[in-house]
Amino acid sequence: MIRTIKFQEHTSHPAAGCVEVNAGNTKILCTASIINQHVPRFLRDQHHGWLTAEYSMLPAATHSRTDRDATKGKVSARSSEIQRLIGRALRSSVRLKQLPQMTLILDCDVIQADGSTRCHAINGAQIALVRALQRLQITKSLRKDPLKNLVAAVSAGIMDGQIVLDLDYQKDKNADADINIVMSEHGDLIEIQGTAENKPFSPAQLNLVLDKAWPAIESIIHMQKQLLEKPYPYTID
Amino acid sequence: MIRTIKFQEHTSHPAAGCVEVNAGNTKILCTASIINQHVPRFLRDQHHGWLTAEYSMLPAATHSRTDRDATKGKVSARSSEIQRLIGRALRSSVRLKQLPQMTLILDCDVIQADGSTRCHAINGAQIALVRALQRLQITKSLRKDPLKNLVAAVSAGIMDGQIVLDLDYQKDKNADADINIVMSEHGDLIEIQGTAENKPFSPAQLNLVLDKAWPAIESIIHMQKQLLEKPYPYTID
Amino acid sequence: MIRTIKFQEHTSHPAAGCVEVNAGNTKILCTASIINQHVPRFLRDQHHGWLTAEYSMLPAATHSRTDRDATKGKVSARSSEIQRLIGRALRSSVRLKQLPQMTLILDCDVIQADGSTRCHAINGAQIALVRALQRLQITKSLRKDPLKNLVAAVSAGIMDGQIVLDLDYQKDKNADADINIVMSEHGDLIEIQGTAENKPFSPAQLNLVLDKAWPAIESIIHMQKQLLEKPYPYTID
Amino acid sequence: MIRTIKFQEHTSHPAAGCVEVNAGNTKILCTASIINQHVPRFLRDQHHGWLTAEYSMLPAATHSRTDRDATKGKVSARSSEIQRLIGRALRSSVRLKQLPQMTLILDCDVIQADGSTRCHAINGAQIALVRALQRLQITKSLRKDPLKNLVAAVSAGIMDGQIVLDLDYQKDKNADADINIVMSEHGDLIEIQGTAENKPFSPAQLNLVLDKAWPAIESIIHMQKQLLEKPYPYTID
Amino acid sequence: MIRTIKFQEHTSHPAAGCVEVNAGNTKILCTASIINQHVPRFLRDQHHGWLTAEYSMLPAATHSRTDRDATKGKVSARSSEIQRLIGRALRSSVRLKQLPQMTLILDCDVIQADGSTRCHAINGAQIALVRALQRLQITKSLRKDPLKNLVAAVSAGIMDGQIVLDLDYQKDKNADADINIVMSEHGDLIEIQGTAENKPFSPAQLNLVLDKAWPAIESIIHMQKQLLEKPYPYTID
Amino acid sequence: MIRTIKFQEHTSHPAAGCVEVNAGNTKILCTASIINQHVPRFLRDQHHGWLTAEYSMLPAATHSRTDRDATKGKVSARSSEIQRLIGRALRSSVRLKQLPQMTLILDCDVIQADGSTRCHAINGAQIALVRALQRLQITKSLRKDPLKNLVAAVSAGIMDGQIVLDLDYQKDKNADADINIVMSEHGDLIEIQGTAENKPFSPAQLNLVLDKAWPAIESIIHMQKQLLEKPYPYTID
Repeated sequence: MIRTIKFQEHTSHPAAGCVEVNAGNTKILCTASIINQHVPRFLRDQHHGWLTAEYSMLPAATHSRTDRDATKGKVSARSSEIQRLIGRALRSSVRLKQLPQMTLILDCDVIQADGSTRCHAINGAQIALVRALQRLQITKSLRKDPLKNLVAAVSAGIMDGQIVLDLDYQKDKNADADINIVMSEHGDLIEIQGTAENKPFSPAQLNLVLDKAWPAIESIIHMQKQLLEKPYPYTID
Repeated sequence: MIRTIKFQEHTSHPAAGCVEVNAGNTKILCTASIINQHVPRFLRDQHHGWLTAEYSMLPAATHSRTDRDATKGKVSARSSEIQRLIGRALRSSVRLKQLPQMTLILDCDVIQADGSTRCHAINGAQIALVRALQRLQITKSLRKDPLKNLVAAVSAGIMDGQIVLDLDYQKDKNADADINIVMSEHGDLIEIQGTAENKPFSPAQLNLVLDKAWPAIESIIHMQKQLLEKPYPYTID
Repeated sequence: MIRTIKFQEHTSHPAAGCVEVNAGNTKILCTASIINQHVPRFLRDQHHGWLTAEYSMLPAATHSRTDRDATKGKVSARSSEIQRLIGRALRSSVRLKQLPQMTLILDCDVIQADGSTRCHAINGAQIALVRALQRLQITKSLRKDPLKNLVAAVSAGIMDGQIVLDLDYQKDKNADADINIVMSEHGDLIEIQGTAENKPFSPAQLNLVLDKAWPAIESIIHMQKQLLEKPYPYTID
Repeated sequence: MIRTIKFQEHTSHPAAGCVEVNAGNTKILCTASIINQHVPRFLRDQHHGWLTAEYSMLPAATHSRTDRDATKGKVSARSSEIQRLIGRALRSSVRLKQLPQMTLILDCDVIQADGSTRCHAINGAQIALVRALQRLQITKSLRKDPLKNLVAAVSAGIMDGQIVLDLDYQKDKNADADINIVMSEHGDLIEIQGTAENKPFSPAQLNLVLDKAWPAIESIIHMQKQLLEKPYPYTID
Repeated sequence: MIRTIKFQEHTSHPAAGCVEVNAGNTKILCTASIINQHVPRFLRDQHHGWLTAEYSMLPAATHSRTDRDATKGKVSARSSEIQRLIGRALRSSVRLKQLPQMTLILDCDVIQADGSTRCHAINGAQIALVRALQRLQITKSLRKDPLKNLVAAVSAGIMDGQIVLDLDYQKDKNADADINIVMSEHGDLIEIQGTAENKPFSPAQLNLVLDKAWPAIESIIHMQKQLLEKPYPYTID
Repeated sequence: MIRTIKFQEHTSHPAAGCVEVNAGNTKILCTASIINQHVPRFLRDQHHGWLTAEYSMLPAATHSRTDRDATKGKVSARSSEIQRLIGRALRSSVRLKQLPQMTLILDCDVIQADGSTRCHAINGAQIALVRALQRLQITKSLRKDPLKNLVAAVSAGIMDGQIVLDLDYQKDKNADADINIVMSEHGDLIEIQGTAENKPFSPAQLNLVLDKAWPAIESIIHMQKQLLEKPYPYTID
């Protein structure tokens, strides 16, 4: 069982796509921006696009306030790790070679944090990303839809031998192991990150986790699809 | 005339106060956090509290995406200037000497930017600040209410000799002069910042601006008071 | 009444203009440098110039030594705020569209600080700026004089209801409100920054401040003009 | 099949443990340092120890030279991600609550990089860590051995449907999916990180990977044990 | 032969000593600040003082303006190297063990640069340092004079086989080798830094340089002594 | 007498040259990388190459572990000073004008530090540099050998009036003066850096140091030559 998820599009927002995800008390704003012409240095001589993600928590998003990365002068190691995960997950959903020279940036800003923020950031950013791809088709920057498949993510924990999904902060703190799973709409694995600082888990337990995760992921992808069937709702000037 | 303003409290948020301000397409999240024991170095030997503000725009809040301060490794000069203004404005509303050794941090994060963000950040942060003071009284950390008075702010521009209030992004770009006014509920000035890069303005024009600003500020303070009459709405654990 | 001001040109200095301002024990070195070809990114496609300012205090300029910004790895928020003010004030004195693609940098380095440093930085930098414009005309980089008007600045404080001008450090510390005023030679306002952390002030008091500030500013502009009537005194190689 | 691994202790090194790992052309120096008294802030009031890891590549370790993190002024996102993994893996092998207030730092410096550096960093650092624990027992800083179990790691890739272990740089570049597995000596999972930027993989394939990984990990742990049976070889002054 | 040197004390400056050095067009401000109680970490458990130096060029001090270190976010390598030299040279002139727990900071800010700035920074800072030691004796913070000896410095270059002293910028650029010599008033070497990027020099040439340097250094020390014979000229509040 | 020195080439390393220097317990890895096309900004319009060096200590190289420069966000002043010395010394051994537009980077990473690391970094980097020049000739990037001469370095200390060479950490700590000497194979001085924080030394003592240093440097250059007579040992792909 996962918490009730709500995706809400902020259609007055200037970005190409802007989705607020709510799951329990976790609230994340995911926006997709299109940076024309610009690609990272290592792609400069190839003529296609790139996708990257940035993840950040507002300082007061957690129970005790965290200092801003900007004040400390650097992106925290935790944020780095998470934004690399989000970027890899979403790149697997797009044929980057079909994009012109541009960078799609998915900003995931956690407004309120109550566990599973990295998974729900992926879930919301996937919708914002598809909106950006739709915009590129509407404005004729793209002829073909470069979307390969949708992806979604769910967190799982092992607590006293039991498997629980979509951990909130309390459960996350107490779980023996913590596993994040990203899957495509075809049920294949895109990313898996499992960590067992408190208590190791067996390969058999990992299989149980995967069995439980797929129906949850499938239901999230179903919600993404329902929302994305509605026509592109943002103004294009 | 100013744009319709809406203050909305996020009562599930973990901070001591959390107010979303909407004014036209400007949307800002203002939260008040209480950092017990901690004060800046220059206050260490005095036994009272401090108040400071942080201001930041989400990267996609503006029409063309801005790089994050954290990525650039420093707080931008514009953010610095604005958060110093917000801090000074709100410090004038509290008797800091009545606070125990603690720092109140007002985080103002711009989710969507369509002009006058520094003024509305003050307007929302004032409410979040009072909520934090209420919480301190409820939890018996404070015996007396240290609030001196409410403050509110409005921006004004001079366009073709006409005075307009609460500038949106389009107006702000085209105004000859740009004046931000912070006043207390008694009609006194707390801060005034006027700048005329395009075209100087006369002291007489400044007086007209002040005459127009006060009723707008008065109406905002009225809204703040109405909201704050409701009992403290956040859970205290 | 303001303190006795002395402007002294350092004519052996390699910059296009270099003025030492002394006002009481405040001593600031203002130099104007011409950076050919270079403009900030947002101006790259337009074919005209830019003007910017940098402000910094030598570490031992104040009574207790301050750490260097370079050692701390960033420009302090206070310096940022001040250099933005100086830049805006001086940009209002030049027709930037008449400059070729170049940046004029006004460096204001406080050698000894005894109050009103931001105002006297503007007063001295205005002279250095005009010297740089003269040099551009002498070297035929400019055909027309792009100077719109001179500007000057004065600080004012309200102490026990009295208005005092050109505050030194002692007065600045004790004033209830602190107002910096930049005006053009025509008596119009370029910038006004008033702050009342200790005690709010009324619009009527603000008008008294403006009435007192103008004669002081006028006398400073008179001194600037007298100095600038002398021919360009620096060597051009 | 994995590449031939060689662990070599640098017994003249001043650290508490210093192991050079060679696996093919991958060469990593892993050292364990004991920082007495010092623990991170979040542990300050608890009276036990902590373990952390740092990972870095020498700039010329890769085919084309990479700029130093120090020159760029920050730890790269990739290094951050890896050192967090190494830290978590090794913390799972020690009872931190049995350590006095101290931090064990495992420095993993890649001298030559030819794939699987994060896994072999764990494999070597595990040995250096045990040496540090031995030293603490010899010097009577510890009465009981706080070691829970040994851990080791292996990388796996899926190439054209085939599973290959211990990828070198060439294989890593061409693999469809890339999975890093850390297991304890009891065959339980400590960490799993699988990523499929090129081609998703099925849960069934993941199981095949786990089946192949365990014997490889087991053989590495066997090597660690053989080396660690030798008495503590470093000088203690 | 060296250029005419002028030492001028800024007696209205708030620092314990403040000396402006002029040598040709080189102009440096050297100030000595006393930071009570504070010493660097490595001295914390010893009960005596420390001396350190900071060196910086104002951005417009050179012919083409240099960016500020603070803007770049770090002290330049050249400044680092020079301030370490100045610090070592001046530490050799004081019995640090006779100082109470305090740090003396010698700030050397180059206002105008025309060669030999590091040497003249030492020459001026030596005077400011002695003034600070005098102040400590006047205020009874020190009972005995901790001064060991005076030091002074001169630069030398080898140009077409000829030795020239006190190089200005033009000579410095064209010299084959560049040697900085710091000596005590007893004619002993404190620091020697010789570099021959263009053309190596023989030990015999080095001896000729030393022979020429000593009389120049002796004459500078004579000037320092003459100035320091005058009573302490700064106000002590 | 100097400690036994061993130069060992790591011929499987991807760099153009990679030499491990061992002298007593000092162990340094020196690699030479060729960065084609790239030169620093000040050389952009000239059509020849550049050489630079980077020096860093692994954090555990010293008795008590040092924090990484990358963690602190900047290159330490000590490292800056040393890498500037190494760069200057090696630039004197090459005719840079004969190199095409490229930068040779000499990375000197100290794996174990027991004194004289800057000198032995030069000694090893000289060999790696010549290997890189050989590679450029083999790959036909260079027609003529641009090597001017070999250089080598030795440290010297004055202890109780006695001169000792190639100081280890213990001796370095106790020496009254510390002198680093870099000479060419012709016995000329390239760099000399002498510092006397504890006790000044006379010009006569400096001459004794130079007399002792030259035979030691000569023997190191002899070892360099013997090694370099062997054909280029690295694979070129």
